[in-house]
Amino acid sequence: MAFKEILSNIVQEMKGEALGSILMDKEGISVEKVETDGKVTDIETIAMGYSVVLKDIFKAAEMIKAGEVSEVFIKSASHSVIMRVLDENYFIALFLKPSGNMGKGRFLLRTASAEIKKEI
Amino acid sequence: MAFKEILSNIVQEMKGEALGSILMDKEGISVEKVETDGKVTDIETIAMGYSVVLKDIFKAAEMIKAGEVSEVFIKSASHSVIMRVLDENYFIALFLKPSGNMGKGRFLLRTASAEIKKEI
Repeated sequence: MAFKEILSNIVQEMKGEALGSILMDKEGISVEKVETDGKVTDIETIAMGYSVVLKDIFKAAEMIKAGEVSEVFIKSASHSVIMRVLDENYFIALFLKPSGNMGKGRFLLRTASAEIKKEI
Repeated sequence: MAFKEILSNIVQEMKGEALGSILMDKEGISVEKVETDGKVTDIETIAMGYSVVLKDIFKAAEMIKAGEVSEVFIKSASHSVIMRVLDENYFIALFLKPSGNMGKGRFLLRTASAEIKKEI
């Protein structure tokens, strides 16, 4: 399945609770993305900001010997983001409205990650 | 209710899935903590590492205009951590075994946060 289709599926399954989904490399460059209603005005810029956060988290995890980081969730006033680390080079992120169901988002992202991993 | 009691309650309610819980200030200094089986060898050092991560996240959130950050979840090979921001000075963290129920942890932490906020 194409990346775009996988990302679209997640967003559709969230039934109006998602703002978008993106597949990025570790430098914060978008490989593929799906945006919905434009509430997160520029999903690419925002995801790039979070890619920097992920690097900070990896650094901290190494420092405290936490082992590999697989998943990060951040809830802010304007949105929630769930990120899954696919491998050392790629991660996938799902943006939800603040009221979005995080448990469902995690589940969908886990399934999508398995599909994307087959392709990369 | 004393902070120690509130933190203990969370850990007990997790029924063996928690590694510990801690109330910290924004500089990473522990106000109160509860540790369980020592799998997270030094919860205070680890939480201090995460307090640095929180600062990085706050900075990124400001940059991308995400609004106030209220909650962060990070899953790594050795543990999961759920952090809730109480106010501009304090946060509370719950450490779970990698298999720990994150949804339950979030719920307990939310309840505990409301109790702690009454006292600080």
